[in-house]
Amino acid sequence: MSYIEDKGILLRKAELELSTAPTKDKNTAIEKVCESLEEHREDILKANSLDIEEAEKINMSIGLIDRLRLDDERLDDIIDALYQIIDLQDPVWKSDRVWTIENGLTISKMTVPLGVIGIIYESRPNVTVDAFGLALKSGNCIMLRGSSSAINSNMALVKAIKAGLKKSPISEEIIQFIGKTDRDYVLDMLKADDYIDLVIPRGGQQLIDFVMENASVPTLQTGSGNCHTFVDESADLNKAVNIVKNAKAQRVGVCNACETLLVHKEIAEAFLPMVYDELRDIVEFRGCSRTRDIIDVKEATKSDWEEEYLDYILAVKVVDDIAQAIDHIQTYGTKHSEAIVTENLINSRLFLRKVDAATVYLNASTRFTDGGVFGFGAEMGISTQKMHARGPVGLDQLVTHKYLILGEGQIRD
Amino acid sequence: MSYIEDKGILLRKAELELSTAPTKDKNTAIEKVCESLEEHREDILKANSLDIEEAEKINMSIGLIDRLRLDDERLDDIIDALYQIIDLQDPVWKSDRVWTIENGLTISKMTVPLGVIGIIYESRPNVTVDAFGLALKSGNCIMLRGSSSAINSNMALVKAIKAGLKKSPISEEIIQFIGKTDRDYVLDMLKADDYIDLVIPRGGQQLIDFVMENASVPTLQTGSGNCHTFVDESADLNKAVNIVKNAKAQRVGVCNACETLLVHKEIAEAFLPMVYDELRDIVEFRGCSRTRDIIDVKEATKSDWEEEYLDYILAVKVVDDIAQAIDHIQTYGTKHSEAIVTENLINSRLFLRKVDAATVYLNASTRFTDGGVFGFGAEMGISTQKMHARGPVGLDQLVTHKYLILGEGQIRD
Repeated sequence: MSYIEDKGILLRKAELELSTAPTKDKNTAIEKVCESLEEHREDILKANSLDIEEAEKINMSIGLIDRLRLDDERLDDIIDALYQIIDLQDPVWKSDRVWTIENGLTISKMTVPLGVIGIIYESRPNVTVDAFGLALKSGNCIMLRGSSSAINSNMALVKAIKAGLKKSPISEEIIQFIGKTDRDYVLDMLKADDYIDLVIPRGGQQLIDFVMENASVPTLQTGSGNCHTFVDESADLNKAVNIVKNAKAQRVGVCNACETLLVHKEIAEAFLPMVYDELRDIVEFRGCSRTRDIIDVKEATKSDWEEEYLDYILAVKVVDDIAQAIDHIQTYGTKHSEAIVTENLINSRLFLRKVDAATVYLNASTRFTDGGVFGFGAEMGISTQKMHARGPVGLDQLVTHKYLILGEGQIRD
Repeated sequence: MSYIEDKGILLRKAELELSTAPTKDKNTAIEKVCESLEEHREDILKANSLDIEEAEKINMSIGLIDRLRLDDERLDDIIDALYQIIDLQDPVWKSDRVWTIENGLTISKMTVPLGVIGIIYESRPNVTVDAFGLALKSGNCIMLRGSSSAINSNMALVKAIKAGLKKSPISEEIIQFIGKTDRDYVLDMLKADDYIDLVIPRGGQQLIDFVMENASVPTLQTGSGNCHTFVDESADLNKAVNIVKNAKAQRVGVCNACETLLVHKEIAEAFLPMVYDELRDIVEFRGCSRTRDIIDVKEATKSDWEEEYLDYILAVKVVDDIAQAIDHIQTYGTKHSEAIVTENLINSRLFLRKVDAATVYLNASTRFTDGGVFGFGAEMGISTQKMHARGPVGLDQLVTHKYLILGEGQIRD
């Protein structure tokens, strides 16, 4: 694994300085990189058109080609997003806990960068720049491994980033791109415990599963969202229609969209026709048998409860009570975003307490699970794991901490 | 893996109730278990004597047999430690962050249990009770896999624990013991992603390495400590002697003991004879060549810089300056506990900021890295990893969080 090792050694060397770099220097570096991306615009778009040509040649799907494509507007967006990271608060060397113990030692829990973050990602070239910006601002070096289909775009972007860093107080070695597309290098990255402190896979479930199964390096799972909205017996039905419509259809290709609607049996007859009327023109419904007794929709099978559609499809199930709703969510949910619509205080508390997910909503659309909405700024994704960070992974989630213990000669009895 | 799976299904079922159990019920359960351990005292000691007999038969080392042995006094200590967990604050369903975003949604970051914790541990049977108590108080179910040498002791302890739980409001199923000693069951545990949220290995480096290499379940590395004390040019030499003596010799078999002494070259001639006079009768010194020019000690080799002695041995190296000291620590340290003795403000800040470890000390003995000392209460160990928890792992580190989002019908634009 000497190729990855070589990159790793460069990163570990760069890490020492970056980890304690002043915010001012990191912001200057981001600014210089923005300017450099602007200057390299033509090269980047030209490189991207090579990738697009190649993708068309192998008959890549239109959706995937669209993800891969860069144009002036998209590059503007990428540069704008990077500029915005300048305004975010530096998450490093802060403390929300300082205390003094009885022998006079003062202990401070201080935030520090993780060290080196590895990103393994699929076609979108914007990840190259986004992930770099978040890593730099949080004081972390970064090793990037994009998909082979975006290799020309990514190389051009990294070249522009490094050119920008060269004009800044931060070393260009803080970013290392894995230019070899052989999958073996992914495996090497996943085993590079000495050089990488955290790997974040960004892509589909298959990529995430591969990373989780093979990594000995710590990982952060920014996973899929099979999200539910439960409309309780006491729900305000108009509120519920709005919430379900928004959660399902405001944008369907996102991890916090609602995939299954659970409806309390006592209001099913009143509510289902309302929501069906509102959504039938844009959404395909798939229902359990009790649903189909009320509205005329396709039949849902077990795979419908399991699937993250990311599409204009909604599974619908009538449940006996809140306990059955919670049970369904625990069985099929991916612990991402879950909502209850209710006017009942006891049920609201029960649902919020019992449902095990990164975010649990009362009377609101699940679409708000987002680092920007939460006030965290840009994010690496939404973590569905329990360790380290759960929910939106912004700058404050890309650090660890250390304890400082300040004394005047204290020894232990 | 059906044996582990069966246990896992029982734990997942028990988890639902335990995760939201009131503190009062959890404390009652701990009390009932303490009483039950008292009642089962004779059975436990008898079972332990079987393990000891077996250990003697296979000529286990005296040190290991001592770790395995229970007697009335040790059992008293185990029960006392469990009683003390009653007094610790419940870490579940607390928040240090509640905020409201511009559309009126209120977001609370709430602590919640991890779910199911797996412990894989070596001979000491006290871990069975300690780990159970910490898991219960933090609302987590527990799967225990002790060493085969302690199988009778552990079975008797778990039997007593379950008998106590039966008299309490908490289900006896929250604790599952892996009674099969075949190593394959360890591997099954390490792959049981569906049933275990976190595995903590408690034992030697070999066990930790095995777990880290083979686990797909998230792990918490409570690793070894190759800790350093750097005596800077400006150090108060008397203070430094006291600190080094305490860090090295107050107790040697612990992970926060000092293993290597680093001395600034400008004070080496004054300081080394002082520390040598103070410690030579109890500690074996092994020095670099510059050390041996000043005091007459054995030669240190590279392996001395690498080794966690856990013994009355101290490696000594003279360094040119603080940069070389930090570099030595980064090369050989295990990111556990590192100390500087100095009266120089700039150097103190440099060391505290640059040294990458769970705990970094100024003018104090490294022996204070301890959940009890920090005010966390009992602990599962000292984490030397960067993800999730770093430093002492007490109750507050055995939880994750979820975001509650409370609204009145909010939808996303």
